[in-house]
Amino acid sequence: MMNSFGEIFRFTTFGESHGLAIGVVVDGVPAGVPIKQESIQAELDKRRPGQNQFATQRKEADKVEILSGVFEGKSTGTPIAMVIYNQNQKSKDYSNIKDIFRPGHADFTYWHKYGIRDYRGGGRSSARETAARVAAGGVAKCILDEFGIDVLSGIVQVGDVRAMVEDFEYAISSEIFALDKSKEAIWKEKILQAKNNHDSLGGVVKLKITNLPIGLGEPIYYKLDNILASAMVSINAVKGVMIGNINSHTLSGKQNNDQITKDGFVSNNSGGILGGISNGEDVEVEIYFKPTPSIFQTQKTIDTSYNEVDFTLQGRHDPIVAVRGSVVAQAMARAVIVDMLLLNMTRRLDYLKKVYGE
Amino acid sequence: MMNSFGEIFRFTTFGESHGLAIGVVVDGVPAGVPIKQESIQAELDKRRPGQNQFATQRKEADKVEILSGVFEGKSTGTPIAMVIYNQNQKSKDYSNIKDIFRPGHADFTYWHKYGIRDYRGGGRSSARETAARVAAGGVAKCILDEFGIDVLSGIVQVGDVRAMVEDFEYAISSEIFALDKSKEAIWKEKILQAKNNHDSLGGVVKLKITNLPIGLGEPIYYKLDNILASAMVSINAVKGVMIGNINSHTLSGKQNNDQITKDGFVSNNSGGILGGISNGEDVEVEIYFKPTPSIFQTQKTIDTSYNEVDFTLQGRHDPIVAVRGSVVAQAMARAVIVDMLLLNMTRRLDYLKKVYGE
Amino acid sequence: MMNSFGEIFRFTTFGESHGLAIGVVVDGVPAGVPIKQESIQAELDKRRPGQNQFATQRKEADKVEILSGVFEGKSTGTPIAMVIYNQNQKSKDYSNIKDIFRPGHADFTYWHKYGIRDYRGGGRSSARETAARVAAGGVAKCILDEFGIDVLSGIVQVGDVRAMVEDFEYAISSEIFALDKSKEAIWKEKILQAKNNHDSLGGVVKLKITNLPIGLGEPIYYKLDNILASAMVSINAVKGVMIGNINSHTLSGKQNNDQITKDGFVSNNSGGILGGISNGEDVEVEIYFKPTPSIFQTQKTIDTSYNEVDFTLQGRHDPIVAVRGSVVAQAMARAVIVDMLLLNMTRRLDYLKKVYGE
Amino acid sequence: MMNSFGEIFRFTTFGESHGLAIGVVVDGVPAGVPIKQESIQAELDKRRPGQNQFATQRKEADKVEILSGVFEGKSTGTPIAMVIYNQNQKSKDYSNIKDIFRPGHADFTYWHKYGIRDYRGGGRSSARETAARVAAGGVAKCILDEFGIDVLSGIVQVGDVRAMVEDFEYAISSEIFALDKSKEAIWKEKILQAKNNHDSLGGVVKLKITNLPIGLGEPIYYKLDNILASAMVSINAVKGVMIGNINSHTLSGKQNNDQITKDGFVSNNSGGILGGISNGEDVEVEIYFKPTPSIFQTQKTIDTSYNEVDFTLQGRHDPIVAVRGSVVAQAMARAVIVDMLLLNMTRRLDYLKKVYGE
Repeated sequence: MMNSFGEIFRFTTFGESHGLAIGVVVDGVPAGVPIKQESIQAELDKRRPGQNQFATQRKEADKVEILSGVFEGKSTGTPIAMVIYNQNQKSKDYSNIKDIFRPGHADFTYWHKYGIRDYRGGGRSSARETAARVAAGGVAKCILDEFGIDVLSGIVQVGDVRAMVEDFEYAISSEIFALDKSKEAIWKEKILQAKNNHDSLGGVVKLKITNLPIGLGEPIYYKLDNILASAMVSINAVKGVMIGNINSHTLSGKQNNDQITKDGFVSNNSGGILGGISNGEDVEVEIYFKPTPSIFQTQKTIDTSYNEVDFTLQGRHDPIVAVRGSVVAQAMARAVIVDMLLLNMTRRLDYLKKVYGE
Repeated sequence: MMNSFGEIFRFTTFGESHGLAIGVVVDGVPAGVPIKQESIQAELDKRRPGQNQFATQRKEADKVEILSGVFEGKSTGTPIAMVIYNQNQKSKDYSNIKDIFRPGHADFTYWHKYGIRDYRGGGRSSARETAARVAAGGVAKCILDEFGIDVLSGIVQVGDVRAMVEDFEYAISSEIFALDKSKEAIWKEKILQAKNNHDSLGGVVKLKITNLPIGLGEPIYYKLDNILASAMVSINAVKGVMIGNINSHTLSGKQNNDQITKDGFVSNNSGGILGGISNGEDVEVEIYFKPTPSIFQTQKTIDTSYNEVDFTLQGRHDPIVAVRGSVVAQAMARAVIVDMLLLNMTRRLDYLKKVYGE
Repeated sequence: MMNSFGEIFRFTTFGESHGLAIGVVVDGVPAGVPIKQESIQAELDKRRPGQNQFATQRKEADKVEILSGVFEGKSTGTPIAMVIYNQNQKSKDYSNIKDIFRPGHADFTYWHKYGIRDYRGGGRSSARETAARVAAGGVAKCILDEFGIDVLSGIVQVGDVRAMVEDFEYAISSEIFALDKSKEAIWKEKILQAKNNHDSLGGVVKLKITNLPIGLGEPIYYKLDNILASAMVSINAVKGVMIGNINSHTLSGKQNNDQITKDGFVSNNSGGILGGISNGEDVEVEIYFKPTPSIFQTQKTIDTSYNEVDFTLQGRHDPIVAVRGSVVAQAMARAVIVDMLLLNMTRRLDYLKKVYGE
Repeated sequence: MMNSFGEIFRFTTFGESHGLAIGVVVDGVPAGVPIKQESIQAELDKRRPGQNQFATQRKEADKVEILSGVFEGKSTGTPIAMVIYNQNQKSKDYSNIKDIFRPGHADFTYWHKYGIRDYRGGGRSSARETAARVAAGGVAKCILDEFGIDVLSGIVQVGDVRAMVEDFEYAISSEIFALDKSKEAIWKEKILQAKNNHDSLGGVVKLKITNLPIGLGEPIYYKLDNILASAMVSINAVKGVMIGNINSHTLSGKQNNDQITKDGFVSNNSGGILGGISNGEDVEVEIYFKPTPSIFQTQKTIDTSYNEVDFTLQGRHDPIVAVRGSVVAQAMARAVIVDMLLLNMTRRLDYLKKVYGE
């Protein structure tokens, strides 16, 4: 399980930040799905660093190459392996961070867990790994496109400034995937301010999944919501997740229950999920990102010999991880949804009869 | 996976609310662990309904019987099966809810997903299933006790009233597992008020895990935090989870990073987890429960033939699900921790050499 | 995985030979399947000991009780738990085998592996566990019956006497599930002779699966043949398995290849499986059982303190394990086939469209 | 599971015979293991085609490249991805086999299962995939070398000519991995004869695992023997497997039971496995390979439009698949053993205490 995600639509990622390559093997793709390399690349391009001043200036082309599983433009049912060769892996001097545990990073825990650590740019714990997820999500998207299922996302909060409206259409073209055009300017300002302070900022991503069939999610431990939660919290820097109305815990049952008419649910406090199963309403999830731990101010830390040091990081990093995280959240959600579509097919005798006849 | 949780320490639950029995099979228990039925029963007793006015008055003895896997007081390495026979399963008249989808419940989704529904008391979607988790957690506790690892929990918020302090010792003896003695009276009042209004209330549980070794959690997709998130959101009525400082997303990197000295971390915004791996600090998690969907006010809903009906529920239900949910959250956390302990053992060559010699 | 089998149709067994009960939880059963307790019981009755002189005289009613997952005669999609309470668990004197490793048995390995051993009747390593598999296979049969898929089996060899014909119809009514009526008498005589010698006999079971759709089996590591092999070798006393023509390894390619006409395959050396996937021909498997290790002659062995002892077993045991093993092999094959049917449903985009529409 | 093997030491292979590349991601490698690329390459070299007249003349350098998971010569605990770029993938004319189902091959079943087929050289169903397994086995070998566990193999039968002795040392240097030097000449002659007849030959591989600790194997469904069986039968062209004495099914209990003295087991009919768990004796397994289905004689078959055709294959193929299969069997066995070592570590409380202290 460690580096794999999903039960049937299952992807396995590999690779370190500054190793030779990162990549992913996507297993469980149904045969016959049109797979367009350019549309997978398009997802990667959204996540790609260096595109504007709100993201790290590190340059990575993130050019994906499909090694297997696609023949004459379609999936064959065999694993789709994709590789992205790292351009940034050339010899750099890591001596200043080699033995240091950067605060807020996984350096400390990887070193203690494994007794060995690839210190080059965070190694496996770097958010660079998420490029591989985005590639897997790109394959998932090819499947969801066949059923008109959309996964949308954007920034709903930067620091403590929250959106008033959620315009997923607008977010697509916003440099910071802002869901609220009226807040975009102030958000950008806050980000640049943090950046200029050699600091960083937390934020919140909102995810919306539309046009989902009723019935996705496998009780009791592979529910749609707990697996979405697992998917989201597995993303670097994510510290929390909320399904549906983020204030449900403060409400009464009368206030929170979504009453039902023959035209559907009157409200959507549930975020489209009841008992862990999609109810046909939009699935809505919020994802809470801590600020980027890579900051350029001096911090106290220790080295591997437990010496205390005053540490000042150098390099190029995102002033806010939530922005590019919005793209990753979409990818993970798509992978979850495809897995749930496949599992749910197997849950009714009448579905078996549709496929196999009687 | 559907009804199983965990990779090595893996439990599988079964049973419906008003069926013959519920139960659990716990696989992956190491051999040689002292298993005390009475201490498993003690966990179940904490969760048992009918103990005071803040929980449902439904009577269930929840008497657990161990069917296998224990010999002469110790685990043998074979599966520990436990069964709880239902006392409440006697014929009751369900005709009023048989074809009705109760708002906020899983009736609607189960019916649409499966095309068939055990309507007796919610069937499988009932929170009664969580008794089986608590039994599994009781087995996990037997293991954790050998290592002095404690999992604590309590109520940190009822509706919109939040605790000022977190006293996990106090919570143990509180009828509502209150973490803040000074808020307990107002919380109780709010709960009874909701109850008298035929309504219910949401709340928040805080979980703390102490004395954890550094190194638990398997990157990238079986991290300590994303699996805890999955475990918690799989609990009935849970809509969200936060790891560490619940405001990290509003902070700057400088504010949020936990600096390190040779005596340890200066702060614990990370909630004891960095890069998905325990860092030796207390693991802290908040779990957000929606209000009990079972309320006794009239609500609009539809029946299986899409007729609109005004529905008024009858019966006995918790006015707040978070209180007994606190016990379930502990159980799930224990299961996660044991699984992580077992997995982590396999992650270093020097550990293999400790076990197998060279 | 340890005590669970299958990926989607996944069952988990529990229980020791002389513990309180044995049982099984069957997860992944599609909703809407008619589940008849009497037809599950009928499978158990075929395996039940004490029915004639060719099996152990130990008495076990093996009465199965369904605890969950069935409502109004149909599966609900939730786990079907079944329990069989042991009647034979009353206090017996085990002092003579308590510290002894019976030759040919798992006593030695369980004790060394776990450091603790339930010595009562073999505990978990007893073939009694296979009753739980048969119950799970009974549920699988309810599903296969909907599609006219038959799993047949019988004895094709006792000791070194092999059948000349394979009459699966005849085997059903034979006391020893003999596939060859003309060999039945000599086989029975050999079995009784071994029994009278306080010895036991090996044998071979042949399994045939008919009416299977083309396409079952998931390359590369969840092929129909390797999972059937895993299922069969997991049965107590099985030491080998052969798919299709058991002499294929001695043939030339020209002899062994099954040529194809528009009416189908000209021969079936492949045993109905090509590249790990069913090809529409009958699936044919042979399963090789060692002789029952429980014999009543004096044997050399050691005790837990490494003292050498001359050991003479007492009790009641099958003179040939293959006979009742034939029923277990059927059950395991049914579980495999259902799992493969469910997995294969998810492997083509056009199947998804049949279930979900476009 | 489809393209993955193992529970903790889990590898996932990808790639088609004539696609861009094949490869494997090995997850679950403990940290700190010296990983030598040249020793992995050495295993691949043993399996590499084109080395002598007893194997296919197809040229593939099978040069492996490690993309991740190794840092400064040691495993880091993160996935080790390896890729082998295909040299043989250049445009060739496949028009003659494009729509034809080659007898004995998976063409028929892949086409029916998936509705699409990569017809270039068998695509995913080609034995070329086994190169990726050998790479994974090479990583496993690095771990086993730390504990002195050896996995040996060789040819014990070609066609119907069986070895008289089993000399695993000799096999290493034999061009056909012959276990019996006295049979090597006749075996080679038979192979060349089949080759000259444009035919092929079946054979049997014997596998021996030495120096294994007692206790490997996880009852009931992840036993050492049933997982070895699964591993072996998953290899292309394998149709059967036997554990221990291949004639156990013809013996009596008295003959077959391995009696025990304080110096160990008197015989090894069990093949080193009792109750699915290693007993400290050598593990012995035979693996039965059908003849290569690729022969150059005219055969009857049909095309995708159900037209009957007389088909004559062209190209270069192994006259006997068992020879190079011997290398693959070793690799799979190594992967199984490492997985079992890791799982078994977690099965005793006293092992946990060795790793974590009390």
